[in-house]
Amino acid sequence: MSALLRGIVAYPITPFTSKGRVDEVLLGKIVDDMVKAGVHAIAPLGSTGVLPYLSDDEREQVAEIVIKRVAGRVPTLVGVSSLTTERTVHHAKHAEKLGASAVMIIPMSYWKLSDAEIITHYDTVAKRIAIPIAVYNNPATGGLDLSPDVISRLLKIQNVTMVKESTGDVNRMHRLVQLCGEDVAFYNGSNPLALAAFVAGARGWCTAAPNIIPKLNIELYDAIQRGDVAAARQSFYRQLPFLQFIVAHGLPRAISAALELQGASVGPLRAPLQALPAERVEELRRILVGLEVIPGE
Amino acid sequence: MSALLRGIVAYPITPFTSKGRVDEVLLGKIVDDMVKAGVHAIAPLGSTGVLPYLSDDEREQVAEIVIKRVAGRVPTLVGVSSLTTERTVHHAKHAEKLGASAVMIIPMSYWKLSDAEIITHYDTVAKRIAIPIAVYNNPATGGLDLSPDVISRLLKIQNVTMVKESTGDVNRMHRLVQLCGEDVAFYNGSNPLALAAFVAGARGWCTAAPNIIPKLNIELYDAIQRGDVAAARQSFYRQLPFLQFIVAHGLPRAISAALELQGASVGPLRAPLQALPAERVEELRRILVGLEVIPGE
Amino acid sequence: MSALLRGIVAYPITPFTSKGRVDEVLLGKIVDDMVKAGVHAIAPLGSTGVLPYLSDDEREQVAEIVIKRVAGRVPTLVGVSSLTTERTVHHAKHAEKLGASAVMIIPMSYWKLSDAEIITHYDTVAKRIAIPIAVYNNPATGGLDLSPDVISRLLKIQNVTMVKESTGDVNRMHRLVQLCGEDVAFYNGSNPLALAAFVAGARGWCTAAPNIIPKLNIELYDAIQRGDVAAARQSFYRQLPFLQFIVAHGLPRAISAALELQGASVGPLRAPLQALPAERVEELRRILVGLEVIPGE
Amino acid sequence: MSALLRGIVAYPITPFTSKGRVDEVLLGKIVDDMVKAGVHAIAPLGSTGVLPYLSDDEREQVAEIVIKRVAGRVPTLVGVSSLTTERTVHHAKHAEKLGASAVMIIPMSYWKLSDAEIITHYDTVAKRIAIPIAVYNNPATGGLDLSPDVISRLLKIQNVTMVKESTGDVNRMHRLVQLCGEDVAFYNGSNPLALAAFVAGARGWCTAAPNIIPKLNIELYDAIQRGDVAAARQSFYRQLPFLQFIVAHGLPRAISAALELQGASVGPLRAPLQALPAERVEELRRILVGLEVIPGE
Repeated sequence: MSALLRGIVAYPITPFTSKGRVDEVLLGKIVDDMVKAGVHAIAPLGSTGVLPYLSDDEREQVAEIVIKRVAGRVPTLVGVSSLTTERTVHHAKHAEKLGASAVMIIPMSYWKLSDAEIITHYDTVAKRIAIPIAVYNNPATGGLDLSPDVISRLLKIQNVTMVKESTGDVNRMHRLVQLCGEDVAFYNGSNPLALAAFVAGARGWCTAAPNIIPKLNIELYDAIQRGDVAAARQSFYRQLPFLQFIVAHGLPRAISAALELQGASVGPLRAPLQALPAERVEELRRILVGLEVIPGE
Repeated sequence: MSALLRGIVAYPITPFTSKGRVDEVLLGKIVDDMVKAGVHAIAPLGSTGVLPYLSDDEREQVAEIVIKRVAGRVPTLVGVSSLTTERTVHHAKHAEKLGASAVMIIPMSYWKLSDAEIITHYDTVAKRIAIPIAVYNNPATGGLDLSPDVISRLLKIQNVTMVKESTGDVNRMHRLVQLCGEDVAFYNGSNPLALAAFVAGARGWCTAAPNIIPKLNIELYDAIQRGDVAAARQSFYRQLPFLQFIVAHGLPRAISAALELQGASVGPLRAPLQALPAERVEELRRILVGLEVIPGE
Repeated sequence: MSALLRGIVAYPITPFTSKGRVDEVLLGKIVDDMVKAGVHAIAPLGSTGVLPYLSDDEREQVAEIVIKRVAGRVPTLVGVSSLTTERTVHHAKHAEKLGASAVMIIPMSYWKLSDAEIITHYDTVAKRIAIPIAVYNNPATGGLDLSPDVISRLLKIQNVTMVKESTGDVNRMHRLVQLCGEDVAFYNGSNPLALAAFVAGARGWCTAAPNIIPKLNIELYDAIQRGDVAAARQSFYRQLPFLQFIVAHGLPRAISAALELQGASVGPLRAPLQALPAERVEELRRILVGLEVIPGE
Repeated sequence: MSALLRGIVAYPITPFTSKGRVDEVLLGKIVDDMVKAGVHAIAPLGSTGVLPYLSDDEREQVAEIVIKRVAGRVPTLVGVSSLTTERTVHHAKHAEKLGASAVMIIPMSYWKLSDAEIITHYDTVAKRIAIPIAVYNNPATGGLDLSPDVISRLLKIQNVTMVKESTGDVNRMHRLVQLCGEDVAFYNGSNPLALAAFVAGARGWCTAAPNIIPKLNIELYDAIQRGDVAAARQSFYRQLPFLQFIVAHGLPRAISAALELQGASVGPLRAPLQALPAERVEELRRILVGLEVIPGE
């Protein structure tokens, strides 16, 4: 089965009301803004969407809101990871039922999993749903590092068709191409690696940046598509300070602060996560003014 | 407030029935065997007890079984960690209500927490309960490394009185003594560091080993207590292959296999965790025969 | 002063006679072959040229042979690093006297150097010569990691005008561009990063690969120069197995073996370095046959 | 052959005259002071003695001065490491001729050495001398990490009888005992690990600290010897700030500064190494006043 995703895969945050409930209205608006700006896919319940901090009910609620609001205009890639296989199957089936285009799974780890455990985990979920699965490798958050070799084995499972690589090491992508062939559907999940990954053959860029700068993200992708290295490099270095900032300070904290600077009211982060400290917000403001995302003073 | 724990703090596994439910009878027996063998405290719902893989209901069930079975014969230290502060408070209050002597909290991480977030997390829980709290530092499982400096700040919170250090670096313990004074109640959570930690001043050893070899663990502690370095060293090197094995292969997998080798029926591990592969079980059998825990052939 | 180097900066090995002396004739031929193949600069006495394993006399001998043989057809970049500042000055002055276009210096480390020590080291050498200096950062061999910040400070010294980055992390290059401006003359020294580095703005690629595949290296550079991303990617993936091999097995060992496979007699490596084991040579042979560098059987 | 070293193995610095030559008089005095204080062996030309920064002639000069001054009162362990095997043999033979009790060799690395290269390196030297060889493992300075397995294989070479472990990880020592038996002659080279290493069975402590606090170092060793854990712990924590300081700031810089604070004139460090910055000297002064090594004000 061929992969259905390409280009800018946008990860919305999960906004909350002042009482700490999921803010359905604002979530819908964020998603709608992204689609209208031209992103190529929407991925709710990622790290940016604070998936692990939500209850099972909240996860189902977010998936439903986003899929309904996207309404088929672009594909949806829904995060369904859980620590146990049983809960992962549960969420994957639910996402499929809601009409998700595909699901994304990171093997969340407390005890480091063996290769056999990882493969059985994916295989068990894959057998229970018919839509495509994207493997997600992000040792910095998930605590487990999937080697290119393990990923290549996962990609042999029937409906496991894509991989999001977030180690930030372009050599991992080279290895995937060498192991799986140049048609392997790999996606870059490390924002500052966007340029290098596209040139290495990445089919898409999984990123929270379109919450704030979707046009710039799309501009970079388009430049690569038409083979204009100079324009791609210029676009990349222009947005790089913003990309570095959101990675350095945690995507939910940084994206929430940026939306607040744009006038949105995204509510409190879920504890123990806290809002970005004031001096960091000021630093972020300067970056956003430089990008003409918010007006300078 | 002075710390109430010392010596061998034993971590029972959580056994399951063949249907995957918590095996209440076997759990009670494991705990009872440990207390009768002479361990100095019982700590349910640790990493060994697969805390993060249990539902909220199961966690409460395990805490209740263990506290009732111990029945005050030794102190209990109940794991109450959750990714969110709200769930951590919930479990801490529940443990207190059940009569736990103290609770243990590891700041579980998906997004890396800032120092301020960590401190507020503990402080929020501490304000809601009256029993002592033990900080637990284990970057290999929790994904977050608490520096000696942060730990020393946490120990200034009213009822945060103990710290379990599982980095496996004795220099961390030296730093704690230097920062907090020689009366700091630190406990070693890295099995192969047991000897070095006691000599450095550790008040106790938090370990899953007493599921299998409680007498040897106590023997090491007693030798240190009476200042017999040669006997302590001899006891340590004798049990070291077992300690190294259970760390290398994951405590729940290794302890479950060892209990099975002793004739217990601990049930399936919770997926994605799988039973130890057969060749590893054979290796473990040889170690246990060498320790005269099971008969040789 | 603007940097004078661009494109493929080729690092010849230092061949030895069967008695272990520098093989002047073969060294001259290797260099001549590179220049005729079209490389843009020649860099004797690099890591590939086993600089640290040569006596002071041998270093001067190699510098002289190479500079004479190049005879101004392309620029020369001569390695002059030593553990002490005094010896570094000595070799830098000697290289300048011989007519080197520029010198390259890695701050070799036994005791980790402070920032102040690193800066004074370069500054002392810079004051004693008039030709440009290239900073070389390679923690894997040199044992010391120069941060982008320290490199940016070194580039403010009068005739320190270039930097070769060999950490293999493209983010370091991004930081250099951000700190020093887009005109910063940085060169990539990590072979598998060649494609990503050029796209990020690297002015050149410092590599031992032209000992064997100069045409492929130049082909990649030319594709980037004319903005043909697809051709650059294709050329890159074609030569990547060779680049990965020489990095994995150590440049002097791997390049020597490849030259032997081509029929040259490069002599024994200097002990403790040993020739590539036979099974690795066989692996290398298959790679070279695939690249049509040597005939298949 | 049984190992001949035990206890406190003291590493003198190499002092220089104001003109940068080896200060023979002061070097002799430093060594003499150590022997009179009761250290159990003297080890010239270690990392502390800035071995890699000395010319071949200077190395021979230092070895001669120290061996003559010790005059057989305690054993001498002379550093003879060089990047090439040929130079290592040269210095080992010279040390033997001068009457060294044993030599110490760290496999200095520029290109990472394979296991076969490491073993051949030691074997070649071992065949050329009759005195014992100590393996020295210190990846932080040497750039190469010898696994316990490789060390155990080196210890099978005829006159390779000792190993100095400086990784600072007591688990490495456990592994050595497990692989080589409890009689393995291992020595600790990580100052802050002194207590843990002795308890784990280390035969000695290789340290630069006796340049300044020989009595305290010996006191710790003696407490362990008589099995007084409490006294050993007390002595250890007392000297720990000094041990941490000299490790954190580099042994030659820190020891030189401490000797200057005691009134000695040790001359300039060899560039690129520089004297400890003034604020660090002040910190060191406070530590030394606390230890009553120098008078307070």
